[in-house]
Amino acid sequence: MPHLTRTDSDAIAHIELNAPERLNALSDGMLAALQSELDALKTDTTIRVVILSGAGKAFCAGHDLREMQAARQNDDGGAAAWGDLFTRCATMMQTVQSLPQPVIAQVHGIATAAGCQLVATCDLAVAADSCKFGVNGVNIGLFCSTPMVALTRNIPRKHAFEMLTTGRFIDAAEAQSLGLINKSVPDSDLVQETRALAQTIAAKLPVAVKTGKQAFYDQAQMTTADAYAYTGQIMVDNMLDAQTNEGIAAFLEKRDPDWS
Amino acid sequence: MPHLTRTDSDAIAHIELNAPERLNALSDGMLAALQSELDALKTDTTIRVVILSGAGKAFCAGHDLREMQAARQNDDGGAAAWGDLFTRCATMMQTVQSLPQPVIAQVHGIATAAGCQLVATCDLAVAADSCKFGVNGVNIGLFCSTPMVALTRNIPRKHAFEMLTTGRFIDAAEAQSLGLINKSVPDSDLVQETRALAQTIAAKLPVAVKTGKQAFYDQAQMTTADAYAYTGQIMVDNMLDAQTNEGIAAFLEKRDPDWS
Amino acid sequence: MPHLTRTDSDAIAHIELNAPERLNALSDGMLAALQSELDALKTDTTIRVVILSGAGKAFCAGHDLREMQAARQNDDGGAAAWGDLFTRCATMMQTVQSLPQPVIAQVHGIATAAGCQLVATCDLAVAADSCKFGVNGVNIGLFCSTPMVALTRNIPRKHAFEMLTTGRFIDAAEAQSLGLINKSVPDSDLVQETRALAQTIAAKLPVAVKTGKQAFYDQAQMTTADAYAYTGQIMVDNMLDAQTNEGIAAFLEKRDPDWS
Repeated sequence: MPHLTRTDSDAIAHIELNAPERLNALSDGMLAALQSELDALKTDTTIRVVILSGAGKAFCAGHDLREMQAARQNDDGGAAAWGDLFTRCATMMQTVQSLPQPVIAQVHGIATAAGCQLVATCDLAVAADSCKFGVNGVNIGLFCSTPMVALTRNIPRKHAFEMLTTGRFIDAAEAQSLGLINKSVPDSDLVQETRALAQTIAAKLPVAVKTGKQAFYDQAQMTTADAYAYTGQIMVDNMLDAQTNEGIAAFLEKRDPDWS
Repeated sequence: MPHLTRTDSDAIAHIELNAPERLNALSDGMLAALQSELDALKTDTTIRVVILSGAGKAFCAGHDLREMQAARQNDDGGAAAWGDLFTRCATMMQTVQSLPQPVIAQVHGIATAAGCQLVATCDLAVAADSCKFGVNGVNIGLFCSTPMVALTRNIPRKHAFEMLTTGRFIDAAEAQSLGLINKSVPDSDLVQETRALAQTIAAKLPVAVKTGKQAFYDQAQMTTADAYAYTGQIMVDNMLDAQTNEGIAAFLEKRDPDWS
Repeated sequence: MPHLTRTDSDAIAHIELNAPERLNALSDGMLAALQSELDALKTDTTIRVVILSGAGKAFCAGHDLREMQAARQNDDGGAAAWGDLFTRCATMMQTVQSLPQPVIAQVHGIATAAGCQLVATCDLAVAADSCKFGVNGVNIGLFCSTPMVALTRNIPRKHAFEMLTTGRFIDAAEAQSLGLINKSVPDSDLVQETRALAQTIAAKLPVAVKTGKQAFYDQAQMTTADAYAYTGQIMVDNMLDAQTNEGIAAFLEKRDPDWS
């Protein structure tokens, strides 16, 4: 059974984590498969939006604890293996944000620990009303320090601290209110609502979306002055695109753009 | 017809963008007029608060697309002209935040693209309930990369990403919930509610407000330790002001301060 | 009468500011007592969580203005004394965040100026429904520039600016909605709700909580890439702890961990 499946249609790649019996844990194999698929998407100009979901009962329950425990048998007690694991996981997370295409998490069941980190990392997230989110590693003595990086860049500080130190699960309504997800929808609407959002974005001019997404995360880490200098040049480059010329001309002429 | 009008009363300068037929687009002329007025306010000690609004149906619909398209006829295809435009616009936006006086956006109709950026840039914003906000450049192939700088410093990450990539408009209630504006009020109350906020702030000691506003944006870009070292000195300078002495003395003596 | 009292039980240290007649103002004596108690807690391995509350009608009303005014009699008009005061206060605030134990503010009555800063600084905050919060120094001509450092790292920008420049008080419901506190509870439940939160965290593995808390504030000031490199190593160190091994093993074996 492959670690994940990919289904393309309408310029949307739907990647589904496919280890339902392990709640789609981010095992070594799963991480490698995801990284490989994301790397392929970087240069896949047929795809404009990516949807990420999980097969079975849950979106993703985080790292594969059995694999992690097995490394304790290594000569160094596991340190090198774990260091490598967290490096690979962080690379995968950062690849999601550096992809040219927006990535939407379609979340159901539970999203916990590194699974919650994955939701926080995706550019957008739609969740089923019944979904629960937690960074609950603290409950077993392993504080969710890497998930914290993504979580604290999404939700207010005190709520992040509470989730991390209490391990408390929040429901989809609270996740929406805190900014962890874009919206919560009835379970039965999850697939179609996520797809509708993907289709909305897939209908935009890809070069504009790609340019904008890259600038989004880069400028967030700059001073305001630097961010303006940087994005001003991004705007110039965007303007120089022939299809942007067509988009603006069409708007001024009150007609639809011809971006074919 | 002038690009904008300015009406002073009660130490409040009310600047109104005055190109209603273009939805108060930030044309070269409008940007120059705004920059000039803001520069004049920097040293105008008679003014304690600034209100910024738009004449006609809308607050501001962003850049002047016809002017921008005209630059395509230049030898370089427009690159230099657009680079200059975005530099001038970013300077104007940053001037709003570096003014000694708080600037309140009084928003009605629509605030889109650079118009939404202007709302996000103002220190405070009051909006009519019927107002709509969008960073919708993506709809015509021009991602709102410069508006993004202001937007992402106001609202949670996932909501900002959604607005930028879908071009979706949000209403005033959602804008308030996300933190883009301070509050939404009935359309008929917009003018008086904005003025009441301005008057509240105009009644404070100007040197305290001026010092605090400058420190507000500067400290936000520092580490916590640096921010404390910096604002500690700001507090000392504030304490050394004779009128602050009077303000604290009056408080301790349970009387009104004499700041005349 | 001591500046504060400390009561330990169930691995929870409850520190109560004890100057009710001055609304628990952060006088020189109070700051010294708090700093001393926090310093002692740094190495007190019997304590897992700290609760901070105020005796009498209020949590804390900020700096001691009478003491501050007295410094005007100094040769330098007070500058050196105030500089020293704000340095000591900032050190105390930063010590709260660098403690190994989470610190929960149990807030009632009012939390104003540096008292509101203290709430914003604590890792977590539970407040009574009737509580009011304000950074109202501007009302007496002394802008809350140092409280702003903590406030702006907790709540959205425009709401922070409004509180700082208008001096407006917000109630506990608004404070919760903005992210200044974790939750607002009926006045009669404040003590037990705060204690329940403390007990939840005290039941976690201390080394995990300690490691995670330190990483929380450090990583927030890094770029995402640096934050991942840093927290990846934190995760490795956490994994190497024998009690974390026990915690994960117990989870995989579907039993309770033996962390005695």
